[in-house]
This record gives sequence, C-alpha cells and structure tokens, in this order.
Amino acid sequence: MKKITLKYIAKELNIAPSTVSKALNGYSDVSANTKKKVVDLAKSLNFSPNTQAAFLRTRESKIIGVVIPHISHPFFVNVVKGILDSAEKKGYLIIVLKSNESYDLEKKLIEKLLKQNVDGVFISLAQDTYDLKHLEAVKKAGVVLIQYDKISKILESSKVVVDDRNSGYLATEHLIKNGCRNIVHFRGPLLPQVSIDRFLGYKNALEDYNLIFDPKKVITSNKMTDKEGFRLMNDFISKKIDFDGIFSMSDYTAIGALESLKKHNLLVPDDIKVVGFSNWLLTDKLTPSLSTVNQPGVLMGNKCFELFLKEVNSKKKKIKFKYEKKIFKTNLIIRESSSLK
Amino acid sequence: MKKITLKYIAKELNIAPSTVSKALNGYSDVSANTKKKVVDLAKSLNFSPNTQAAFLRTRESKIIGVVIPHISHPFFVNVVKGILDSAEKKGYLIIVLKSNESYDLEKKLIEKLLKQNVDGVFISLAQDTYDLKHLEAVKKAGVVLIQYDKISKILESSKVVVDDRNSGYLATEHLIKNGCRNIVHFRGPLLPQVSIDRFLGYKNALEDYNLIFDPKKVITSNKMTDKEGFRLMNDFISKKIDFDGIFSMSDYTAIGALESLKKHNLLVPDDIKVVGFSNWLLTDKLTPSLSTVNQPGVLMGNKCFELFLKEVNSKKKKIKFKYEKKIFKTNLIIRESSSLK
Repeated sequence: MKKITLKYIAKELNIAPSTVSKALNGYSDVSANTKKKVVDLAKSLNFSPNTQAAFLRTRESKIIGVVIPHISHPFFVNVVKGILDSAEKKGYLIIVLKSNESYDLEKKLIEKLLKQNVDGVFISLAQDTYDLKHLEAVKKAGVVLIQYDKISKILESSKVVVDDRNSGYLATEHLIKNGCRNIVHFRGPLLPQVSIDRFLGYKNALEDYNLIFDPKKVITSNKMTDKEGFRLMNDFISKKIDFDGIFSMSDYTAIGALESLKKHNLLVPDDIKVVGFSNWLLTDKLTPSLSTVNQPGVLMGNKCFELFLKEVNSKKKKIKFKYEKKIFKTNLIIRESSSLK
Repeated sequence: MKKITLKYIAKELNIAPSTVSKALNGYSDVSANTKKKVVDLAKSLNFSPNTQAAFLRTRESKIIGVVIPHISHPFFVNVVKGILDSAEKKGYLIIVLKSNESYDLEKKLIEKLLKQNVDGVFISLAQDTYDLKHLEAVKKAGVVLIQYDKISKILESSKVVVDDRNSGYLATEHLIKNGCRNIVHFRGPLLPQVSIDRFLGYKNALEDYNLIFDPKKVITSNKMTDKEGFRLMNDFISKKIDFDGIFSMSDYTAIGALESLKKHNLLVPDDIKVVGFSNWLLTDKLTPSLSTVNQPGVLMGNKCFELFLKEVNSKKKKIKFKYEKKIFKTNLIIRESSSLK
C-alpha cells in the first residue's frame, strides 16, 4: 500500500519516484514547481508528514533515538550504557535526547527524530506525559518503538521494566521484618507508573503484615533530589508523627532524608531504618551505607536493543511480530542503614 | 576545488551530480555499471573516502557526534549534559559514542561518524591514543572538530579544557599550607595530557615550597577506580614510607584510598589529609566528606557547542576562522578530608 502510493504519485506526475521522495523531504535540487505539484498531490491523498517519512524509508539509517527524562540520574546513564554496548556491536549509532521530564519537550524531540529517519525510538516517558499521540506517530511512521522504565500501560510496544511493585513490596517487607511498624514512604510524582507501582508494593506489604496504611506517612517528592528529601523530612518530623522506618522510591531523596535525620539526632539504623531505590554510585560508601533496591540498568539497555533488533528483523523477513514485555527482577541490597542493631 | 571535482566527475561521465553522489554513497538506485564508472573515476582522481564525504555534504545534517572515553564517569556525563542543553536550543541532535579508552575503537567510531555525515565531532581522547590521523581526517572531511578535556597539544582545532596544571598546584599547595610535608600523588596513566599536567602542578608546588620531590610517592593508577585506589594504597602503606597527605587525580581513586586508610586505622584528616579531583556526585556526603577540585563539566559542554557553532557560521559566511582554546578555571572545594579540623 505504502509503496504503491509513492509510485502512484510519481506516475501521476510523470517524474521519478526519487524526485517525489526528494520533494517531500525538502531537498534543494528539486524545482519549486515540481515540489509544489508533489506536495499538493500528497496532500490530496491525505499523507501525514509521518507516513511520508515511512514512505521515504528506502534504506535503514542505522540510527536509534534514545529519550531519557534526565541525564544526571545514574540509572538512565546505565541504561544508555547498555544500549551503546549492544548497539555498537551491530553498527548502530545512538542519538541521546533528554526530555527534562517535560511532555512538551518530549513531543518536539520525537518529531525531530522522525524527521531524522531513525530506525528506532527508545523512550522512558516524562513525568507529565499524559497524551500518547506522538508515540503512536512513531509506530505509524514504521519506526520501532521501545518503552523502558517509565512506560505507558495502554500504549502497545515492546517494553523493558523492572518489577516495581514487587520491589516496593520487598523493600517494605524487609523493614517490617527488621522491626519497623511505622514506615514512611517517599513516593514519586502521581503519574508515572513506576511511582504508582512502588507505592502499591509498599501498601500491599503493610496490608499483608496487618499494619495500618496511613496516607499521612506517604510523602510525595516531585523533584526527587537530596535537597527536597531533606526539606520534606524536616517538614514531616515537625509534625511529630511516630515513625521508625523509611522506604524511599529514590536514593537521592533518601540521602536528603538521612541528612535531616542526622540534624534531628535520630540515629540510623537504631532509631530509623532507611531503604532507597536505584543503587546509585557511592551509596555503598556513605556512613551509614544505604540499603537500596538495585535496578539492572545496563541489562535493561541491552534488552531494549535486543527487542528492537528482533522487531526490525521480523519486519524485514515479513514475519508476524508480537510485542514483548521484559520484566527484570531487582535485588534488595541490605546495608547499614536498615540493618538490625 | 571540492565542488568542481564532484561536478567534473558528473560531466566526464555525462550524468547528474546527484547520481555521482549516490554512487559514491552506495545508494541502491544507481545501476552497478554507473556505480563502477563513478567509483573508478573517483579513484583515479585519488579521492579518499573522507574527502568524498565532504563532497557530498550538500546540506547540513544538524547532527554532532560526541565521543567520550567512558560513560560511567560523572564528569563526562556533565559535559554531555552541557552539550545537549546548548545543542537542543539550536536544533542539533547529538550522537553519543564511547571509546572505552581504546584508540582502536575510537578510530572506528570516527569513521562511522564521518559516514553519517555529521556536522561536528567533539572528542576527549582515549588514554592510549597516540596517532591522530583519524582526527586529521575529520577536518579534511570539512567536519568541525572540537577537542575537550583530554586533548592533543599538537592537533589543531578549537579546544575546551580546565587549567589542570594550576589545579594540581592549588590542591597540593592547600595540603602543604595545612601542614602536609610528605604528599603522595595518585596520577593517571602516562599519556593523557590531563594526567601529565596535574602531576606537573603537584611537582611544581612541592618545588615552590622547598619540599623534596620523591618519585616513590607518585603512584600510577591506570583504571582510576575505587578498587584500584584501595589496592594501590594498601601496597604503598606496606612499604612503610612516611606520608601525611594525598592528592589524587581522580575522586574515585581517592575514595578507594580512604577505605584503605580506614582499614589501617589512619585517621582522615588528623593523620592524613586527602584531596581528590572532579567533585563527583555524593563526594560531599561521604564521612569524611571529600575535598576535591571541581571541574565545570556542564559549562565545558556548553562551550564546546558554542565554539562549534562559531566555526560553522564562519565557514558559511566564508569568514576566516581562528581556532580558540578555552581554559576553564577550576575551584578547590575544601571539605572535611583535608581540613585543619
């Protein structure tokens, strides 16, 4: 269907298909007159720019666009590392883009990638991404879409995630088993699935161990920085609510909370036990060293590329392809901040 | 000259310049016969593949290739962040590649980038890069080359660095002023200029303060990891050489050394004062917090892009362009590990 239409335009206008392609792509070596004819006819046939891009994909670009929400987060750096390691072996180049957790920017980046004729788009969604048309457009353009980490449940594509709910459960259960009865949860923003799932894991663990779930003990951290963790912990302590444990959905927030606890002369792990999430570099060197949930970022990056290649090869061989969802197990790393004694 | 030759081939063979371009680029919609004719003539005119690439640069790709030695190093992540921040505003996309500190891989990556028709190559050299032909090729291809951090003194291009020698001097001087008389230096591998310059800064400071330079107190760390720092420090301590200070050319090595000192019951900063280099994330959260030299990675990334754009615009306007070398000042961050307590 696609090829017929490209050829159809060429035939209608009695020009070469390559000229049609050039005209639609804005090349300068096509006359303004020809360009107008092509674009007008294309419009009358109701081409969207993205489907045009798909038409023009006569050969692979061997380029993949990888969208990360922010680059300072070691987890995303690890994912990129995993993608680079795998992609390099197969001769692919990686364009790295950061959405700064902004849906608007994310949309623009995707448009730019499609214009660049990339073979694939790997994305971890921005915190505030609610509409998914820009990602539907990726698929419509014939470009392979892989979602990783912060994914949409409703948008179909291959996906690479960790078992966030179970991870949240295990971290909380560990605190309970080490004697905590009043556990504070630092959660992420409301929208991302990872934030919801880690919270649900925390909640389920409390329920399974017959501990009362108290919404006042759930603190929402939007920026998830050490400074915010410090500030939010100070605020919480000022409310004089009893607590003996903290499960934070990010290491960085947990580190800020640790500083607040120190300031308030609360001893870790004696008075308060703390578990973070992500196993950031140097969290093992802190005093106390930080217990945390290890996300296999590099392996996740490897897997993103593997699923991409599988889909590309299926398309080439015209084999029916079924989206895959790879759920990585995490492992709880128990260090001083949550140990007994 | 370049354009004349491309047109010359087209004229000689009585075909369109775009066909010559396609033939040289390996497009599939040129007949094998034509392709052979073009390639043979191109060869007889002694085209190198890279100058071919330059011929074919009929329009900007708006893509820049950024080569980093390794991605797990927060300094390089910061440089990439700075480049992305600036590039995005001007509509450029960034291909990130890592050389894994290997000259051989670096060479391959550069070839791949030139084939992709990038507008610029930003590079921090691999540790063992000794030959620079692959980078000369970048310039010959009409692609803007920017060197940053680990640069070659002899290869001409715009460059973005920190004042490594002065930084090494200031770190060492600080230790001397705080009472150290026997200062160990963890240096990097022999080749990179940054490693040489930081070492020279250390040596000059000793000389200026009439302290004896003792090569036995200079320890070469090739991998610059915490594990290596730990092992090398253990080895050094076993030699029973007196020392009261450490200036390490990397934070990660310094952190390993700190662990070794702790194991040997040497107190920091009381017995031994320690200064690292780079201001890695979380070095301020360690106990003791690590004194270090702060490299402005993000600003360096911004500057790389600024110098690139300047060169591109000069070329467009056919204005004579003079390479610039931007030397950023670092700042010494004094924390607990080197304080007078």
